[in-house]
Formats: sequence, structure tokens, C-alpha cells
Amino acid sequence: MAKDKKVESITDMEQDFAQWFTDVCTKAELVDYSGVKGLFILRPYGYAIWENIQSYLDKHFKETGHSNVSMPMLIPESLLQKEKDHVEGFAPECAWVTMGGSEELPERLCIRPTSETLFCEHWSHIVHSWRDLPCLYNQWCSVLRWEKTTRPFLRGREFLWQEGHTIHATAEEAIAETKQMLEIYADTCENLLAMPVLRGVKTDKEKFAGAEDTYTVECMMHDRKALQSGTSHYFGDGFAKAFGIAFSDKENKLQAPFETSWGMSTRVIGGLIMTHGDNNGLVLPPRVAPIQVIVLPIAAHKPGVTEAAEALVERLKAAGVRVKGDFSDNSPGWKFAEWEMKGVPLRLELGPRDIEGGVCVAARRDSGEKVTLPLESIEESVPALLEDVQRGLFEKAKRNLDEHTYAASTVDEVRDVIENRGGGFVKTMWCGDEACELKMKELAGVTSRCIPFEQERLGDVCPVCGRPAKKMIVWGVAY
Amino acid sequence: MAKDKKVESITDMEQDFAQWFTDVCTKAELVDYSGVKGLFILRPYGYAIWENIQSYLDKHFKETGHSNVSMPMLIPESLLQKEKDHVEGFAPECAWVTMGGSEELPERLCIRPTSETLFCEHWSHIVHSWRDLPCLYNQWCSVLRWEKTTRPFLRGREFLWQEGHTIHATAEEAIAETKQMLEIYADTCENLLAMPVLRGVKTDKEKFAGAEDTYTVECMMHDRKALQSGTSHYFGDGFAKAFGIAFSDKENKLQAPFETSWGMSTRVIGGLIMTHGDNNGLVLPPRVAPIQVIVLPIAAHKPGVTEAAEALVERLKAAGVRVKGDFSDNSPGWKFAEWEMKGVPLRLELGPRDIEGGVCVAARRDSGEKVTLPLESIEESVPALLEDVQRGLFEKAKRNLDEHTYAASTVDEVRDVIENRGGGFVKTMWCGDEACELKMKELAGVTSRCIPFEQERLGDVCPVCGRPAKKMIVWGVAY
Repeated sequence: MAKDKKVESITDMEQDFAQWFTDVCTKAELVDYSGVKGLFILRPYGYAIWENIQSYLDKHFKETGHSNVSMPMLIPESLLQKEKDHVEGFAPECAWVTMGGSEELPERLCIRPTSETLFCEHWSHIVHSWRDLPCLYNQWCSVLRWEKTTRPFLRGREFLWQEGHTIHATAEEAIAETKQMLEIYADTCENLLAMPVLRGVKTDKEKFAGAEDTYTVECMMHDRKALQSGTSHYFGDGFAKAFGIAFSDKENKLQAPFETSWGMSTRVIGGLIMTHGDNNGLVLPPRVAPIQVIVLPIAAHKPGVTEAAEALVERLKAAGVRVKGDFSDNSPGWKFAEWEMKGVPLRLELGPRDIEGGVCVAARRDSGEKVTLPLESIEESVPALLEDVQRGLFEKAKRNLDEHTYAASTVDEVRDVIENRGGGFVKTMWCGDEACELKMKELAGVTSRCIPFEQERLGDVCPVCGRPAKKMIVWGVAY
Repeated sequence: MAKDKKVESITDMEQDFAQWFTDVCTKAELVDYSGVKGLFILRPYGYAIWENIQSYLDKHFKETGHSNVSMPMLIPESLLQKEKDHVEGFAPECAWVTMGGSEELPERLCIRPTSETLFCEHWSHIVHSWRDLPCLYNQWCSVLRWEKTTRPFLRGREFLWQEGHTIHATAEEAIAETKQMLEIYADTCENLLAMPVLRGVKTDKEKFAGAEDTYTVECMMHDRKALQSGTSHYFGDGFAKAFGIAFSDKENKLQAPFETSWGMSTRVIGGLIMTHGDNNGLVLPPRVAPIQVIVLPIAAHKPGVTEAAEALVERLKAAGVRVKGDFSDNSPGWKFAEWEMKGVPLRLELGPRDIEGGVCVAARRDSGEKVTLPLESIEESVPALLEDVQRGLFEKAKRNLDEHTYAASTVDEVRDVIENRGGGFVKTMWCGDEACELKMKELAGVTSRCIPFEQERLGDVCPVCGRPAKKMIVWGVAY
């Protein structure tokens, strides 16, 4: 009855990266497809990754004074239309509820694509005085955007996310909030997910519908494409004015408050897969892995082996390690492949000879490297090894980012990176004109990723129009 | 600038319980109304209560081997129709999505009213062998039911809940699961929310659409009406057969598996309000209270008072108490009323004379009783006092339940309890016939709450038809 064939192999990532990605999503049991295109099921293993991301973010949100709330999932059409840029950006991809029970609704309701309008309506009820500010809110929910092309994690018609929304008495405070939340996203990417980021501000063309400024953290995937992994938006007082929100300041003068919003979604799980995965499947950084260590008894039929493996599991559990023993009757070969597919950072093998020698064999998922660990000091050596894997994955991803970030001074050089050098991020100067941004896309096949916070001076002129350049911008091919 | 008028008073609960309830929901800042009828906003304080319930339940779900997943929010009409009883129960109150962007959809999609059909479809993909069983899943989400009458917490068109769904190789295992989850709900009501429960099984008329058996925990509110606070359903193999789910057993024979589902929602927050609240507002049991202790400096302008209050907050925080200091410039009267409205279990007052005497004054929200506590041993006395409040609230609610649960042997006696004695639960014998259940409703204005697990023999015949009685049943007026 035992499964003994090796788990089915997946597409080679160098042959077909998109198919490799889909294979990993299903074979590692992260997702299943539902009957509606673009609506995915997050299976226990996929959802457990999200729970670890949630708990990391939620802790940081609360430490910085934010409270969770719950907003309705439906937005009346008239409410969505109150802010002009916002409705233009989102209305074309809304799903509309038109019937409640057997009755046609007097007004169409859209399933929230994002909830700025709902927060604004609520604030118009509760914000009256400077004493009511700031409101620092967040919600965990799913949103719907009726996209044409869909892929697990990367582009779903429904996806899980958190959306933070805040309202402040001053522009300075709102801008500081926007920057603070971007730093939390950068920290989450780098220190939890081992994904190094490029921080910057979006161009007007790429910013969020209705925002004055959109800040972003951009990550480079294994295929050198860019993934926007978290964004925070500064709205100025535009939304507040559109929704009639005003407060009395300390001098009893009526003022318009300033707003922000910021979000990170299950999309980062797509990023996690495409940053660290390999041809054996998923590779998870230990800090976010639902299972950090898998213990496999070898020759488990021999006396004492199962008991020793169970004892090892208990000791690691007591040491705070997320550990699981695989005591099924599947073959060792099947188990090796299965837990590699699932990206478990460390495999501990324990057989009769190991037990006799007071050791176990640890195999690292990132490098395949095997080391022998004395059982005696397992509570120290395993956490240390896990931290080493975490660090190693970050460094490898950082090398990928650094080695494939180029500086260019002509459009041809940008195109050359994309077409002939396997892709990457390309830094150039930019005049700030949207026409040049569009021209660069047309000629080199890239979009602007961001204007990095850390600016460099690569020259004096825009490579597209030759006019004086104002800023350095980074280009890439985006997911 | 400081607020110094006492917070607005609320409707007297003995005058108009329904209006009192709504007043508490809004004045304690638990909810706000959105622009769509029946879709409520959970504000930070209301959501924090839900987060405490969530974390308690989630811990117990995981300890009993369950994993969280995420299912889509939309169900194709054809999928909803697969189980006959289920669709009959839910289709009339579905909200329907008919447009995606600007295009009409080929098939209507309903926003999930509950997700049995989605779990079944998923299981038809992944369950093949006895090795794949059981699947013990749960999801935290919101669902929509297009109700006519809506009230905060008690009946929303959208509400937050958890829905557990499991699938097993045997009926015995599924039934044991159904009972186990009911026990978790009973424990949550009694030990977290201080709401004593009556456990039992629903009649066929009252059971969940598509279930073989529905188990329930019923609580008695302050107004002696019943609130169904958690239910778990045993489905037999009905859903599995309707959805074509089958597995090979150990003898390689194809079998239909057995399913359960179980849910608890934000409705219990309504129950919490209506069980413990009083004419000063909310009263929260300490274990579920977002803020367990509010520290108020008295005569805060005098030297050393604010510092001493801050030190007290820090000491309690370090002792694991959820504590907050109110250092605003609002008047003491306003603060007293505000934190009473919010139901904070314990108020600690600290003024210059208290500091001099090395004490503070503790006022209990449940009884109004004041005691003087030596600051020296505050880390022990405050948690002990909180446990005492928790116990006291449970006992008070238990007395309400016990004193207003009656035994009756005629329909007139049942009606008398409802019409002349202020209501309550009434136990009678019952023949098991649905006609008598309907007749009792017509004549006495009650519905069956449950057939209690703990049966008593109150006589031999059904009070409605006079035929031999099979079971004892409990009647009441339900929310």
C-alpha cells in the first residue's frame, strides 16, 4: 500500500519558468484550482505560509500603534465613484452584485477591489476633532479584481491581503506613516522571506489610482523579472475632500485631514517561490517555513529507531523548532523527494548506525549539503543551522539582484540587457517625462519599477530624449 | 477643549431591550453602519473582541489537528445546486454576481453563504485513498446571507465567522468529530465568554440544510430569549455522494466518505453583550476583554500622580495584564462613564492620597464594588480580582439560565412562561412529530431550541398530541 515511487518530477525551471512555477504551486500542495477562473484554493501548506507572514506583519502593525477592523465586502457604485481617479482605475475590473435573493438591487454593489472608499465613508462619520486623529487601521481580508489573465499567487481575481488605512491631522505625519509602513514591508521581505528589496517611489504612470505618491519595494525573481512586493500610498487630502471629511483643529478651525493606505498580499508567496525555488521544488526560508525540520527514521523497522526519532522530534519541539517526523510507511526515496518538493529547510535522518554513534545526518534543502550532528547538542546545532540557511538564501538572492542590476546610458543598452543578457534591473537617468517612460517601454520592453530612494548620478541627460535628467530610475520586466 | 460631559446615556434595558442593544453597539464603539443595509463595520474595539475569540478558537482547532485553508468567496450556481436540501436552504438568500468588469458572466456566481459545496468540490480533486483521510480543515472568512431584517452582530447580511469542514473514512469518526467541535464551542462560551450553555441536538425542522444531525449550544440572554451560539453538523455521506467523492479503503474497495461542518460567528459578540451588559453599557468578561484594566490618575496635575499611574500600568503590563492608562485631559466623570460603557472589567484609581498610603482603589465593572488594593502586591491581587469577575459573571448568567428554565406538561404552561412569567426555556416531553413542533409554535409562540443531550423524564406523553413521548425537548423564543 505504501507509496514508493518518487513524487512526480516537475518542469525544468530553465526550460519553462512559468510551467515550473505552476508545477511547484500544485505539487507542493500550496493551491488547488476552483471552478471559477482566477479564484484559487489555498491548501493547508500554502495557507500556513500565509499565516506566518500574517503573524509577522500583524505584530509589527500593532507595535506601531495600528488596530485591526473589518469593513464590508460590498461597495455601492455611487460610493466608488466619489474619487475620480480611483474609480477610473478600479471600475473596469470590478465584479458586480446585481441580485439579492430573487430581487434585483436598486443599485449595483461591487465586491471591494480595495477599500479606500469604505474607510473614507466611515471616517466621515467618526472624525470630527483633532482628538479623533490619527486613526491607524488595518484589515485582513480578500479582494476581487476581474483580471483577464490569472495565475496562482501572482494574479488572482480574488486574493488575500492586508490593507492598512490611516488618517492624520498633518501631511508630514501621513508621509512619515507611508514611509514607516514601506520599511515594515522591506523588513518583512528581507528578514522573514529572505528577499532583498529595492525601495523607491513609483512614477505618476505607475502609482495607485488616486494617490499622490506610491512607495514600493521591488524584488528580483530567479528569472530576473521584477515583483512589486508591497506598496504604500500617500493620498494627501484628496480623498478626504472628495468624501467631505473634516476636523476641527486645536484652534477650532475646520481642516481636511491627510490619508495613507498600504498593502501586502499573498502575491509575496509567489515571490517566495520564484526567488528561492529550484528544480526539486519549493525552497523555504526557515523563518517563514511551516515545517522547519523534517525528521526521517531510516530502517524504521529495526528496534529503537522509531522511538529515537520520536524523541528527537520532541526535543526539537521543546527547543522551539517547528518540526515534524514522517513515520509513514512510504519509502525513504519517496519521503526525500516529497519533503524537498515542499521546501522544508532541513532534513534530519536517523538510522541504527547514527543512533549507535549518537548522531544524526542533517541535509540542507538550499545546498543539498549534508553534515553530521551530535544528538547531544541538537538543541543548539539545529537552530544555528536554520539561521545559516536563512542567511544563505538571502545572500544568494542578493547576489542575483546585485549581479543583474545594470547601469545604462542609452536605450539600446537597456534593450540589450533584456534581450541578450537574460534580463535584470537597469538603472538610467530620466527627465521625468511620461512620454519618455512610454517610449522606453516601446523600444526596450521594460516598465519603470521605481525611482530609488538611494539615488546615483549616472550622467546628465535622459537616455530617451537627451534633455537634462532629474532623477535616476530603475527599469525592468514586471510580473 | 477637554470633554467633560458624561458620555450620553443609553436606553434603559428594561424599557426597550432592542434599543438598549443597538445603543451599546454604537456607544461602546463596537460597530458603525455602512452604506449597505446589513453590512456592518467592526470598529477597533469590536474587532479586538473578535480577535480574542479567534485566537482562543484557533488554538483549540489546531490542538485538535485542524489546519486553516482559504476557499474562494464565489460559488457557481451549478455547484451550489448539487446537493438538493442545501440549495433549497440557501439559494433564496444568496447575493448574486452577474457582471465581471463590463461583461455579463455566462453563469451567475453567488457570494458564499457557507462553503460546503466548495469544500466538496476540492475534496473531489484530492481525496482518492484512505491515506488522504481525514481532512480536518477550517477557514476564517465572512459570508453573505441576504436577510430582510438586520441587526448588528445578531443578524447581518455579511458576518465574520469560522467554518470548519472535515471528511472522514467512517461515520463513527465523523460523528465523534461533530461532538468534539461542539464541546469546543461549549467550552468557548462557558470559559472564555462566561456564557453557560445548553447542549443538544436540533430537530429535523431546525437542522442545517443538508445535515443528518445538527448539534447546538444555546445560551440564555438577559431578556431570557435564546441565542444559538455555535453549531456542528454531521452530514453522513450525503454530500460526498452528491459530489462524487470516493476513496479506496485498505482493501482497495471504493467507499463514500463522511463529512462534518461547524461554525461560530461574530453573533456570539451579540450574545456577550446581551448576557452581561447593563444600563451603563457593555460588561466584558476579563478573559475576552481587549482592555482588562483601565488605570485612571486622579488629580493628575498634582506632582507624581501621572508618573505613579504610568508605573502602575507598566507593572501590570509586565504581569501579563491587558492594561491601559487614560492620561487624557477629559474629566474623571467622563472617563468613568466612558470606560464603564466599554465594559472594562476593572478600573484602578490612583490619586495623591492613595500614593501616600501605598494603595489604589479598584472598582469592579460587574458589581460596582470598590476595594482598596496595596500597590505592593498588585501583580497578584489584580489577576485574582479579574478571575473573580470572570467567575462572578458566569455564575450570574448561570443563575439567570437556571432560574428561568421551567418544566411543563401542557401547552398552556409553556405559553404561560412566555406570556406571563417574562419568558425563559421550557422543557417538555415530545412525541418527535414535526406537526406537534409547529403546533407548539402556533399556540405558545416558541420554537424548539434543542433536544438536550442530558435527558430527563418529565412524563410519558407529548403535551401537544397526547401520544407517547420519545424525548425531552426545550422550547424558547429565539434571536
